[in-house]
Amino acid sequence: MTTLPGPVLDALRAAVGAEHVRTAAGDLAAYARDATPLFHRRPDAVVFPGSAAEVAAVLRIATEHRVPVVPRGAGSNLAAATVPTQGGIVLVMTRMNRILEISPDELLARVEPGVTNAALADAAAAQGLLFAPDPGSRTVATVGGNVATCAGGLRGLKYGVTRNYVLGLEAVLPTGEIIRTGGRLWKDVAGYDLTRLLTGSEGTLAVITEVTVALLPAPAESRTGVAYFPSLADAGRAVARVLRGGLVPATLEFLDRRCIAAVEEYAGLGLRLDAGALLLFGDDGPPETVADSLARIGEACAAEGALEVTCAREVAESEALLAARRCALPALSRLGSLTILEDATVPRPRIAEMVDRIDRIAEKHGVTIATFGHAGDGNLHPTCVVPSAEDTEAVRAAERAFADVFAAALDLGGTITGEHGVGAAKLAYLPARLGEDQMALLRRIKAAFDPAGILNPGKLGS
Amino acid sequence: MTTLPGPVLDALRAAVGAEHVRTAAGDLAAYARDATPLFHRRPDAVVFPGSAAEVAAVLRIATEHRVPVVPRGAGSNLAAATVPTQGGIVLVMTRMNRILEISPDELLARVEPGVTNAALADAAAAQGLLFAPDPGSRTVATVGGNVATCAGGLRGLKYGVTRNYVLGLEAVLPTGEIIRTGGRLWKDVAGYDLTRLLTGSEGTLAVITEVTVALLPAPAESRTGVAYFPSLADAGRAVARVLRGGLVPATLEFLDRRCIAAVEEYAGLGLRLDAGALLLFGDDGPPETVADSLARIGEACAAEGALEVTCAREVAESEALLAARRCALPALSRLGSLTILEDATVPRPRIAEMVDRIDRIAEKHGVTIATFGHAGDGNLHPTCVVPSAEDTEAVRAAERAFADVFAAALDLGGTITGEHGVGAAKLAYLPARLGEDQMALLRRIKAAFDPAGILNPGKLGS
Repeated sequence: MTTLPGPVLDALRAAVGAEHVRTAAGDLAAYARDATPLFHRRPDAVVFPGSAAEVAAVLRIATEHRVPVVPRGAGSNLAAATVPTQGGIVLVMTRMNRILEISPDELLARVEPGVTNAALADAAAAQGLLFAPDPGSRTVATVGGNVATCAGGLRGLKYGVTRNYVLGLEAVLPTGEIIRTGGRLWKDVAGYDLTRLLTGSEGTLAVITEVTVALLPAPAESRTGVAYFPSLADAGRAVARVLRGGLVPATLEFLDRRCIAAVEEYAGLGLRLDAGALLLFGDDGPPETVADSLARIGEACAAEGALEVTCAREVAESEALLAARRCALPALSRLGSLTILEDATVPRPRIAEMVDRIDRIAEKHGVTIATFGHAGDGNLHPTCVVPSAEDTEAVRAAERAFADVFAAALDLGGTITGEHGVGAAKLAYLPARLGEDQMALLRRIKAAFDPAGILNPGKLGS
Repeated sequence: MTTLPGPVLDALRAAVGAEHVRTAAGDLAAYARDATPLFHRRPDAVVFPGSAAEVAAVLRIATEHRVPVVPRGAGSNLAAATVPTQGGIVLVMTRMNRILEISPDELLARVEPGVTNAALADAAAAQGLLFAPDPGSRTVATVGGNVATCAGGLRGLKYGVTRNYVLGLEAVLPTGEIIRTGGRLWKDVAGYDLTRLLTGSEGTLAVITEVTVALLPAPAESRTGVAYFPSLADAGRAVARVLRGGLVPATLEFLDRRCIAAVEEYAGLGLRLDAGALLLFGDDGPPETVADSLARIGEACAAEGALEVTCAREVAESEALLAARRCALPALSRLGSLTILEDATVPRPRIAEMVDRIDRIAEKHGVTIATFGHAGDGNLHPTCVVPSAEDTEAVRAAERAFADVFAAALDLGGTITGEHGVGAAKLAYLPARLGEDQMALLRRIKAAFDPAGILNPGKLGS
């Protein structure tokens, strides 16, 4: 099934061990896709390196023979960034999954890239520490993938995104050199900020082989509340009132009317179906602060016309409320055989306007789009449900609708992707966001790292 | 005095207006230095652009004629990053000093690069907002300079450094293209992270012409305390105990014995001269939280053998305590005609060990080095006082001592610069920090932005 020449395969086997080079049809099929619908292409080989030195050996072989290499963690990417769209080698980093060190004195952890976000978060929690990035895929997504995509999550407003927590990286250049960027320090300005340049570079500049991340003391308590509003515009005003009041809470998530209905149908949580929007809010910290915080958010919601406000009194109740948000995607997925999840992002005050536009765009193209997302940072997840993936016309209509959605986000001062990335799925929309001059600069930066263009070709920087 | 050809000067005058191109001897002398001792070189012209379009015009002229261009804000740089070491044009950004927008609803400000850190902080404070970066030079330093150096400051541990607050930039490439990176969004992963790559690039990749920064709600209260310890090792253990206790306070600054003596001699604040170290601590937030925080830090200090702990009861008292730290540099400057301020940085638990090493290095080379700095993030400012700048042998001894200091910092897992930057002053030490492979990569990145090598040549990326 593979089209790689025998000598290349032999060299790969010598580099990582024969048992870590897979070319059987079943293996190739398994790594033809990530979590993005509609994108798939079989690789020619799947390679599982065990060390930075092995990664370097693989990359030198690939550069010499001009073979594409697509680095991959759990494959939970939603922009087809880990689909081998030009074939070649999928380089799966999951064997390198050790937590090398957790230092409570230095408030940091050093890990191999294949450790999952949840495993690191659990290990940190066992020492009273918090690993803040929490993408929706956290139970399966790897830390290497978090870094490669600059993953966001549900607490971005208060805690920021992955980039705010990456202190240092070990990475292998496509030409085989192993570099170490940053380190264990909060302050370090020796050289260009390659740590942050690699963060979010989607496996197109280098392969990450070790990550040092900052941890925080775990907050003593987390609590959640929920408010229902007649419309998203009301919920948006409540969010603005909270922030103007000097509070930056950990969680401010919303579901639109369609999402509320889908979640209730799916999970039977007892949500109100007469509301136009649900706002899930939460904060963490010392108990007094959290209590004060939730009370103030509740008051802001009431002042902006909330139909109902409920604050969880205990942890189990908070978890139940969060479940409404966490199951938005599975709930919507049940409505059709194809679910396209997007993440257009707009300035926070324009969320309601953007959701209005999305609704009109959906109507225009005759598709169903439900929207949920992060009200605190304007990061929306409009989700299109297509009844059948085989219905080519319906799929095309969804694609046309999303082209309009991205244009609307840009028109409102936003962006085409807040946290999922560009990958293969959104590369065509990138020039509208960055302009041709910046696109050309991206290509020159890519060439500075990867002169042969072997690393994740056809993605960011192409 | 200028060696620029007439047609180049004519083109510059046409680009920005004749009154904004200076070539008189006095003007050239005024821009031959920044705040770094021992480095100076006259430029051939000093140019004051008024807009991004004018910057683009100047850079196109410079690229065409291969004339070096050194972008400069207030010139408070401490690593000779804004000294025109190869002559050419000093591009002074101080005319572009407007605050374009402060948005309480979006928690951001948009400014021209020449606005000072203090002016932005004051304008934000007037709306109940905090601009967190606070380098020691904040009253004169420009926001453009803060971004170009990724400036740190006294509250880096809790609040992070400048990079954590830069949301978007407008910048002009050396070849004249105007690009916009990032924007108004907390989450935006469309493209390589050029916002962070330009942050800390020390004017070697592009000229920043507009900055969008994140603001925070201003904390309700700030309070400060001071503890004296027999030795820096005791103070270091107190810092570790604070952080292990789950607290990340806003301020944790220390002065060694020599600094305490110099500050007391200079300012007569009533400091204890029998102590081996002074730890200045502080926190901000809601009043109850701050009170609790200071009490816990005080307890940690007492538990680690503090000679004395005092917490300010009111704002004026807090300011008086902070003065001890803020006047460390002027106090030391009085001790000789030449003061070399450095900023080697080590992992936090190794501060006491590093200061011990610095003391032994000073002894070995027969120089006086006093050390103060940021205990929370391991960012030390060993400061060498040379009695006379004309004493060439003493200056050489200081330089040899600092070479040993940087080697010691690297040996302890640290870096050659935490917040001042590389500039011309520390470029020779950079290969020891980054390795030759990464140095080569930096040069390739530099070339991707600046093919003619006109922007701040002989600095980072050279």
